[in-house]
Amino acid sequence: MKEIKVSIIGFGTVGAGVADILVKNAELMAIRTGVKLKLEKIADLDIVRDRGVKVPEGVLTTDCNQAIAAADVVVELIGGTTFAKKVILDALNAGKSVVTANKALLAHHGAELFAAAEKNHVDLFYEASVGGGIPILKSLREGLAANRIGRICGILNGTCNYILTRMEREHAEFDAVLADAQKLGYAEANPSLDIDGFDTAHKTAILASLAYGQWFAADDVHVEGIRDLDSRDIANADELGYRVKLLGIIKNNNGAVEMRVHPTLVPKKAMLANISDVFNGVMVEGDMVGRTLFYGRGAGRAATASAVVADLVDIGRNILTGSVRRLPAFTEGKLFDRLASMEEIVSRYYLRFTVSDEPGVVASVSQILASHKINLASVIQPENSTKCAELVVLTHPASEKSVTKALDEISVLPFNLSPVRKLRIEEF
Amino acid sequence: MKEIKVSIIGFGTVGAGVADILVKNAELMAIRTGVKLKLEKIADLDIVRDRGVKVPEGVLTTDCNQAIAAADVVVELIGGTTFAKKVILDALNAGKSVVTANKALLAHHGAELFAAAEKNHVDLFYEASVGGGIPILKSLREGLAANRIGRICGILNGTCNYILTRMEREHAEFDAVLADAQKLGYAEANPSLDIDGFDTAHKTAILASLAYGQWFAADDVHVEGIRDLDSRDIANADELGYRVKLLGIIKNNNGAVEMRVHPTLVPKKAMLANISDVFNGVMVEGDMVGRTLFYGRGAGRAATASAVVADLVDIGRNILTGSVRRLPAFTEGKLFDRLASMEEIVSRYYLRFTVSDEPGVVASVSQILASHKINLASVIQPENSTKCAELVVLTHPASEKSVTKALDEISVLPFNLSPVRKLRIEEF
Repeated sequence: MKEIKVSIIGFGTVGAGVADILVKNAELMAIRTGVKLKLEKIADLDIVRDRGVKVPEGVLTTDCNQAIAAADVVVELIGGTTFAKKVILDALNAGKSVVTANKALLAHHGAELFAAAEKNHVDLFYEASVGGGIPILKSLREGLAANRIGRICGILNGTCNYILTRMEREHAEFDAVLADAQKLGYAEANPSLDIDGFDTAHKTAILASLAYGQWFAADDVHVEGIRDLDSRDIANADELGYRVKLLGIIKNNNGAVEMRVHPTLVPKKAMLANISDVFNGVMVEGDMVGRTLFYGRGAGRAATASAVVADLVDIGRNILTGSVRRLPAFTEGKLFDRLASMEEIVSRYYLRFTVSDEPGVVASVSQILASHKINLASVIQPENSTKCAELVVLTHPASEKSVTKALDEISVLPFNLSPVRKLRIEEF
Repeated sequence: MKEIKVSIIGFGTVGAGVADILVKNAELMAIRTGVKLKLEKIADLDIVRDRGVKVPEGVLTTDCNQAIAAADVVVELIGGTTFAKKVILDALNAGKSVVTANKALLAHHGAELFAAAEKNHVDLFYEASVGGGIPILKSLREGLAANRIGRICGILNGTCNYILTRMEREHAEFDAVLADAQKLGYAEANPSLDIDGFDTAHKTAILASLAYGQWFAADDVHVEGIRDLDSRDIANADELGYRVKLLGIIKNNNGAVEMRVHPTLVPKKAMLANISDVFNGVMVEGDMVGRTLFYGRGAGRAATASAVVADLVDIGRNILTGSVRRLPAFTEGKLFDRLASMEEIVSRYYLRFTVSDEPGVVASVSQILASHKINLASVIQPENSTKCAELVVLTHPASEKSVTKALDEISVLPFNLSPVRKLRIEEF
């Protein structure tokens, strides 16, 4: 059986995971798939530190170019968007197929990388960039190839889902849970990429691109993170039958594609609401298949490595059967008309007003909302001992534009004591 | 773009669904995948009845051989295991790749069909045979290729899940719900294949075969259906925090593989417990990826057709890139030692005793269980106005052999008034 030589560039957490699988499960994979993957080189600046993997002698090197030259397939696991980009381009231009998990790089420079892969007639796969170990890209591109995609909603960031799960269970505030998550290693020292929603936006852009045939920029995604979430809103949602999840939402409304990331109220009975802790889940709706959901670990050494190695097996099959580029890195072919603006989206809303406790306030709020054609589904005013009252409103579907206008009007009224809290609701 | 000519044999529900996708979404798929599928022929004895699909002129025929001869790929959707088998063998022997959704045929004659596909060097794909529209076979074979599979648990039959969901929600008895399901078209006039667990067993055998590299016979699967389920046990389970689901369970215990199908108590917080109505879900645990779950419609015209067409796209890609048999129909390669007997499985158990309401009964039952080293996790004796009492016991993990022996002993004692109800519990 011909061996497929694999070089890993970047011996960090996921790199060590990939090496571990290639050492431990290579024989199993050869039996199961007919593809024998050989760990040829691992390149890193630090080849001394113990990563808990027993790597065969001669595999470790600090020479990235040597590692690329020695391989049939190169795995980029450096992270970042500068040196990682150079490594991928070097490998592609040397005629090597590439596997990467680098969503930020793909979201920002995908088009350039895909062009290089096409020019050199090699494969570029990136299953691990979205949903960690979940084979969501394969499912979307291949398993659901027969479908027009109407909606995708994903819990795509394990750190955020872990924080939200704990905020809900422990009735705790964001800052306290984040600090603890950092201590436990579930959140980075600089957590912005995760908690401000950018990582979810990168992944949302990738999913939308595969669904609609144009490589979207991450900047086209409307992003709101979870940093400003108040535990009271999570508690209110709970009481109303919802959980708050950071969702990447993609919809196609008659050709207008929305891409947005924000904390979202999800009905408790929905499958997505029951995805807890660091787990990820992606719901995909197709015109033929109906609703599907894919669930698993969205991060972590072994799960992410599982996805990387699945790509290696795919590329190995292509090399062995002479069908490299059987599945192009990305297939251009626009399946939509235009991007929707945030103003035109239609959603249900959760609104929490902090108002002075005086007669007529509920009437005023309701009137202003009504004047913008926003219909109320329910209004709750919890009993309160202080002079201010909390007013929680769930709306029927309304346009973001109307809601923004209504809230602008309400915010300047004297009875409104602090900024209105607005969360969107997604129904399933 | 070269067209891939597709002939459908069997113009029933799923056949009409496949034709519908090929008529409606062929252009979309050509853009997205680079594969242009052309509906060449549909063969059926009845080509007059309206199936709600607008089929191009000249496509319908009663001549099965003509349809096979005209195609690049043949879709077998006749069902049954006699003529369907002949059609598939004829097509394979004529050098045509084949797509089928026929789990019963595969479970009983898979090895013979795979050999014919190999001999003729053509593809034989069967994604739609398990989990309807869910790309579970692709996920298991390709997406999770890097993993040793430790456990698979699946809700694999929509009819059973629909009946169980309604029994739970409506506190209704099996017979009443089945009759209504038949009226509504969710269950067949002869429902045995579904409700007695055989359909789930076929699918379980296929999943286990792909996980462990030997084509298992459906007869190797231990099967108990849902026909004898009592609504009291569903109510008791509910009270104890469980839902009752018909699961296909596959486990590898140090090389001994279990395959079993039976009604199972699933903790409500588990994802599988939240899969309701006709939906299917498959949980797959791998040594690297951890726990994954795949959810969607397990049956129905469009969902099943979605899976069939995904196979067509895969085969189309292979034909266009000269890589037919890139993924063999089945890869032999034993990844286990032996099949486990039912006696040796270890499980938690739900036991309901109907006993005479007299002193010492609980003690006797407990003593006999203890003498077989069966530890009790909880004992509940609901208040009862009649002379008989109900005693519900949840055990800690115990071997099936011990439990069978203990129940044999208890069943002959005078205080035991009717057969003990035994259900297994699966933890997640």
